[in-house]
Amino acid sequence: MLKETIYAQGKSARQASRELARMSEADKNAALGAMADALEANVEQILERNRVDLESGRQAGLTKALTDRLMLNEDRIRAMAAGLRQLISLKDPVGETDTMFRRPNGLEIGKVRVPLGVVGMIYEARPNVTVDAAGLCLKTGNAVILRGGSTAQQSNRVLTNVIAEAATAAGVPAGAISLIDTTDREAVDIMLRMNEYLDVLIPRGGAGLIQNVVQNATVPVIETGVGNCHGYVDEEADLTMAVDVVVNSKTQRPGVCNALETVLVHQNVAGRFLPALEEQLVAKGVEIRACERSGRFLRQWTPATTEDWKTEYLDAILACRVVDSMDEALEHIHTYGTRHSETILTENYHRARRFLSEVDAAAVYVNASTRFTDGEQFGFGAEIGISTQKLHARGPMGLRELTTYKYVVYGDGQVRG
Amino acid sequence: MLKETIYAQGKSARQASRELARMSEADKNAALGAMADALEANVEQILERNRVDLESGRQAGLTKALTDRLMLNEDRIRAMAAGLRQLISLKDPVGETDTMFRRPNGLEIGKVRVPLGVVGMIYEARPNVTVDAAGLCLKTGNAVILRGGSTAQQSNRVLTNVIAEAATAAGVPAGAISLIDTTDREAVDIMLRMNEYLDVLIPRGGAGLIQNVVQNATVPVIETGVGNCHGYVDEEADLTMAVDVVVNSKTQRPGVCNALETVLVHQNVAGRFLPALEEQLVAKGVEIRACERSGRFLRQWTPATTEDWKTEYLDAILACRVVDSMDEALEHIHTYGTRHSETILTENYHRARRFLSEVDAAAVYVNASTRFTDGEQFGFGAEIGISTQKLHARGPMGLRELTTYKYVVYGDGQVRG
Repeated sequence: MLKETIYAQGKSARQASRELARMSEADKNAALGAMADALEANVEQILERNRVDLESGRQAGLTKALTDRLMLNEDRIRAMAAGLRQLISLKDPVGETDTMFRRPNGLEIGKVRVPLGVVGMIYEARPNVTVDAAGLCLKTGNAVILRGGSTAQQSNRVLTNVIAEAATAAGVPAGAISLIDTTDREAVDIMLRMNEYLDVLIPRGGAGLIQNVVQNATVPVIETGVGNCHGYVDEEADLTMAVDVVVNSKTQRPGVCNALETVLVHQNVAGRFLPALEEQLVAKGVEIRACERSGRFLRQWTPATTEDWKTEYLDAILACRVVDSMDEALEHIHTYGTRHSETILTENYHRARRFLSEVDAAAVYVNASTRFTDGEQFGFGAEIGISTQKLHARGPMGLRELTTYKYVVYGDGQVRG
Repeated sequence: MLKETIYAQGKSARQASRELARMSEADKNAALGAMADALEANVEQILERNRVDLESGRQAGLTKALTDRLMLNEDRIRAMAAGLRQLISLKDPVGETDTMFRRPNGLEIGKVRVPLGVVGMIYEARPNVTVDAAGLCLKTGNAVILRGGSTAQQSNRVLTNVIAEAATAAGVPAGAISLIDTTDREAVDIMLRMNEYLDVLIPRGGAGLIQNVVQNATVPVIETGVGNCHGYVDEEADLTMAVDVVVNSKTQRPGVCNALETVLVHQNVAGRFLPALEEQLVAKGVEIRACERSGRFLRQWTPATTEDWKTEYLDAILACRVVDSMDEALEHIHTYGTRHSETILTENYHRARRFLSEVDAAAVYVNASTRFTDGEQFGFGAEIGISTQKLHARGPMGLRELTTYKYVVYGDGQVRG
């Protein structure tokens, strides 16, 4: 019964995706504008449903952080609407020709950007993802099937209704934006294996959610999220800059995937760097978990274990390790990194080049904060997530990463000899 | 025990991939040349092991077609060597910068091609795939773990030994090219879930092999192969050209994924087109399975069922259906196609454009044979398979499709505000 409902949604989304693929950018933009207007026109209704979710969350003992993610207010709804309007100004990649060439037999072959088709989004109780994902998918001509965290069910339902109705009224085919509207966890299992109607799954959330999708999906997945990010302070670092960059990477927003989790410090500068770093970190309330050698230069710290090297804290905690050499730093990053974002602080040309070349990660930095690994910061205008896998998309995924290509081939009767 | 062996291979491949990623194109080319030389220097040894496989195959009652795929001779070994040498002349995509841009805060961000890392190949008893895949992966700086069909085990072992030894002697790190050298099917299950050491799995072979990988892998997969390809003969087709293209698409090599399986004919030209087509097909020994309306214009045919519309024959059989309109043809392709290769025969500008736009497939043709969906024919010089999924790569996969990218970011102390 549940399976039938979800497959019916899938079929409807697949059907819609055929029309969406041919929709003009102007029509898609008009729909995005209508969706934004509808959100603003329905603030009261949306807040009312959100209050129901918040009340259920309160009764279930939801943490403060999760409650904050779930909570909507007029500003936040206006920010969602602004996000949709911002998409209007971005260039639609659909229809762009990446390359076109002629073969010796006269065939002309073009590689043209097309939508992925139907995108499945699986995420936690963050109602803004509902609107973001719907907007990004619509702009790129994809249908989307949304499955948000059950704590946000009422909020997601009203948001999806409001934007999907506005979209349909503006000419978007029915089924283009839909929500799996049940708290039954079996719904996720069904989505994970609905290869017939889903071209890709994008999970967004904590490690548990993402691993469930990666381990159990037969639909292709773009893995997002986990970032155990490192900063390596080289012996030739500008130490003032290094303190700034490490502190910013750690504290500007500790709860996100591009925040720094471990700093590796060359032994020759540890004595000068670590006390200066500690002063700043203490002021920001950051706890330090350090190796024995780091400890010699710190006042307040607890000993780090291998568990610390492995952990994505997502919190005001920084692991700290002194290394003998850059080789040791690279080995540490290779062993414990999650191939998300890594930065070196150095004034040395060769070591900068070596770090960029040898570190395998979505984004590799010299003398800059890891916090820049972000669609907005990279200038993509919007992002649907940050990929930590290597297939299809790596790092921040913007509009282009929600498309694929097809080869269009113009012939005059060519046959193969 | 088996798992330990395979994980040890995985670890060794991962380690090798770090060195491979930094190997210069000149060094990789030298190794490819050495591998080709080694194949030619060991023809007798290779043929001897191949004869053991052929004898086992004979005793096991291997079909003629499979025996032909398994069989090596001096010419075939020289062709493998020539394939490796051809890779030398192709441009290595690793290190190419797709795009580089500067952000308002001065950060310079480059998108640079890098190897995927470690590729797992799972394929049937075709020894040439062993050498092809090893060469393509080496050229693109990837380590490869090969798992060929058990009927070819002796051949694959000797081929892998010969090329891996030559590669190592030429400076390629040990572990870069390795074979899962067991006929135990559990080895495949282990590979499918070895996310720690494999970045991608590429299955090549029949539908059963591919579906096993797609259904059970947690490692990201590039799905290849199944092609239920269609030709639509429009009412404004050049019928002589249409016959040529349909006959070529069907008969030039019926056993491959880009061969035509169904022809859809507009009702207004069926009476002229089908008899001319049948004459050519009969001469080539092709059996026709036709709808009732097609049958009126044919002499020898059997009635087609829905099963026929769904079937990738990979054989000298063509399904044939008369349609009322282009809409009906598009609907048929949407319903039964596998998004591989589709062609329209028409002289009408608008319908040509419509077909290219509305048909969702890796390669969409106007007035040309579907048999061109091939890395060599597209001018890629070599291919590792033809993707039928939408993530990462679509259609023929050449060297570029064996790479991914990373963002390299040059800063001067930028922090996020």
